[in-house]
Amino acid sequence: MSNNSIEHIAWREGKLHLLDQRLLPHKIAFKVCESHRDVVTAIKEMYVRGAPAIGISAAFGIVLAAGEALSKSFSSGKTRELLKTASSDLEGSRPTAVNLKWATSKAKSWLSDNIEASTEEIYTGLEMLARDIFADDISNNRKIGFNGLKLVPQNAAILTHCNAGALATGGYGTALGVIRAAVEEGKKVSVFVDETRPLLQGARITAFELIEEGIPATLITDNSAGYIMSAGKVDLIVVGADRIAANGDAANKIGTYSLAVLAKYHGIPFYVAAPLSTIDLSISSGAEVVIEERSENEITFIGGNSIAPEGIKALNYAFDITPAELITAIITENGVIEKPDKVKIADIFTKGDTFLEKHTD
Amino acid sequence: MSNNSIEHIAWREGKLHLLDQRLLPHKIAFKVCESHRDVVTAIKEMYVRGAPAIGISAAFGIVLAAGEALSKSFSSGKTRELLKTASSDLEGSRPTAVNLKWATSKAKSWLSDNIEASTEEIYTGLEMLARDIFADDISNNRKIGFNGLKLVPQNAAILTHCNAGALATGGYGTALGVIRAAVEEGKKVSVFVDETRPLLQGARITAFELIEEGIPATLITDNSAGYIMSAGKVDLIVVGADRIAANGDAANKIGTYSLAVLAKYHGIPFYVAAPLSTIDLSISSGAEVVIEERSENEITFIGGNSIAPEGIKALNYAFDITPAELITAIITENGVIEKPDKVKIADIFTKGDTFLEKHTD
Repeated sequence: MSNNSIEHIAWREGKLHLLDQRLLPHKIAFKVCESHRDVVTAIKEMYVRGAPAIGISAAFGIVLAAGEALSKSFSSGKTRELLKTASSDLEGSRPTAVNLKWATSKAKSWLSDNIEASTEEIYTGLEMLARDIFADDISNNRKIGFNGLKLVPQNAAILTHCNAGALATGGYGTALGVIRAAVEEGKKVSVFVDETRPLLQGARITAFELIEEGIPATLITDNSAGYIMSAGKVDLIVVGADRIAANGDAANKIGTYSLAVLAKYHGIPFYVAAPLSTIDLSISSGAEVVIEERSENEITFIGGNSIAPEGIKALNYAFDITPAELITAIITENGVIEKPDKVKIADIFTKGDTFLEKHTD
Repeated sequence: MSNNSIEHIAWREGKLHLLDQRLLPHKIAFKVCESHRDVVTAIKEMYVRGAPAIGISAAFGIVLAAGEALSKSFSSGKTRELLKTASSDLEGSRPTAVNLKWATSKAKSWLSDNIEASTEEIYTGLEMLARDIFADDISNNRKIGFNGLKLVPQNAAILTHCNAGALATGGYGTALGVIRAAVEEGKKVSVFVDETRPLLQGARITAFELIEEGIPATLITDNSAGYIMSAGKVDLIVVGADRIAANGDAANKIGTYSLAVLAKYHGIPFYVAAPLSTIDLSISSGAEVVIEERSENEITFIGGNSIAPEGIKALNYAFDITPAELITAIITENGVIEKPDKVKIADIFTKGDTFLEKHTD
């Protein structure tokens, strides 16, 4: 089974090719980023989305800035200045997912560790780092899938929200990685796909991935998930995350919190699948996460057509916070954290394999 | 304050003029129904929607059938046969709202009470009946508004779902009637409007009504209601109903159930505003309500544009059931039923005013 038939993130001849996910599922087109500024735009305008995918894109954004320095024959010092600006621009492109900062902090660490490097060496070093981050993300998602598949019963009906699939990550996916791994293990599953207003990542992207994989999927409106749970049609819920606080509170696409409350009410397990790079130990709880508020037009227009009367206000939170107490378990590449709390989350980092020893701060 | 600046249901020169609500808010166009079959189409295809509004339309649909009989010089017996067919067609046009059957049963009662009537007398009698049903609905909604306004605190932030406004009824509205009445009483309120996928009645119709009235309104995606509740931004929820069982379980637009669970979790009062014509004493609980399943295309297409990959299945329940235990109170024209149950619901019918003595079976 392929983990992703479209090369949605590709680094070719010093340029970053990003699938324009805004156009899915009906059009496959790419944005070619030639500078870190192009990457900032691609992240802000959501050509690329999904916490791990924007982390990977940011890592290559830094490389593009190093490339600019190289082409302009910048001194090592001036290069480091440009990289500082590029990092800050990339970190600021979207506020909620921690993966942007995680990626730029990896670059900063490399720069600190290689204080004597020439501009050329910086370029080469950061390019290797970005390629590693990309490859490791896919590898971690396969581990997440493997760790999560034991939570998926035979013939499970699984509900997911937004897209935490191959296209939200380097490949394979987090929440969809768990589903893919269960299917690869020979389990029969079916998936309810929340459409995920306003940008319809479920309808457009998750549905697209599941159809590609031949996994039985049914699209539903976000507001029908509760009723479908009450009818006994959902065995478990699995979603991704954009940032997880030290106590286990998880920021994820708007609508996740409602699902978690509904899952609790109906006694349905609610799982968050995310790599350790999504866990932000610097914040003690979800209250510290900045929730991005996006344009009202994302709600009042669909496909360029107005769906609401002129003059109506709209409130467009892109994410919400699900408190740890509503999360049955967090599925990471290092294992499953049941009933997540501060201690268990800190512990999971110590269960590192060689990948973790190399990459986790 | 107007209760509705558009005459969305109008009986003129023996024809029923229905606003085509599918085109709101950007186009104001009418369907002129010349036969009961036109009314069946208008209800099925949702030119007209909202339980009370389709009840009124059905009442006039019967009149159109009587008009057809009159124009064809049918005998009284043949007229009664045609009316039987017309009733059955109208009742079958949508399965969930009880108001269709309620309206046709009024016509049937009139026919039983006037067994000697000529075709001309039948036409005149049923036309008067339909006009009464229409006028009484508006009058009842004003009573619902009056009864409900005491539940609305000063400066309340109110969440509503779908459209239970003037356009869903004869006029003034049920859930929006409560909001209108509170505003008429001088209360300051603001309204969160759930957009209500798939057909966006909140974004298209409720937002339209509230803007017309100058009531502060904010459009939100259905999936953000829970998070907005958790942020303490919602003081109460009020929705309409399509059918209420004898025990207080309420069928209403898909998504209502999720809101009720979320309201319970956050300790927010959850009110259902509906006329007694919506209460179906013939069914003991919500389990007996037939939930309409509509076309997958309503989910996979928005404004004629596909939003999902070819071949994806979709599940489109039009309604869901909210159990009585999640309803803080039902607001009717006869009073407020707090913690609704079988006994209190039976009792409310005995608190009839002259309208009720005249019209309630």
